[in-house]
Amino acid sequence: MKARVTVTLKTGVLDPQGKAIEGALKSLGVSGVASVRQGKVFDIELDAGDQAKAEATLKAAAEKLLANTVIENYRIEVVG
Amino acid sequence: MKARVTVTLKTGVLDPQGKAIEGALKSLGVSGVASVRQGKVFDIELDAGDQAKAEATLKAAAEKLLANTVIENYRIEVVG
Repeated sequence: MKARVTVTLKTGVLDPQGKAIEGALKSLGVSGVASVRQGKVFDIELDAGDQAKAEATLKAAAEKLLANTVIENYRIEVVG
Repeated sequence: MKARVTVTLKTGVLDPQGKAIEGALKSLGVSGVASVRQGKVFDIELDAGDQAKAEATLKAAAEKLLANTVIENYRIEVVG
């Protein structure tokens, strides 16, 4: 079973890396970009066969390791 | 206009960071994870009003800066 966990910064949390990308895009001549925020994505392959078990595993992984829930949101998608 | 660019490693490219996450999940007692591959996600706000122009800007950004097309794939989604 395949799944994707997307981790993004919460609104209001400063993102210096995103700001740097904005600046770099401007320097490279890519115009029309108002703002950039960077996040992480984890493509996970699971042994679990059923959806409920897969979601429980992914939630544990996200809470324990993949996301810092103080400053980050995470979203779980089971692709199938 | 909002958009998301997702950058992932091409198949066959080694992902030591993903391997490290796999190991860490095992140590933390999260079982049932067969493999992990890490990628990046960019949430981009655009000035452009029309879809075609937005997609052209995003393609330029991805090709020039966000993705290393030798080892990475990118996917553009205009969220609206």
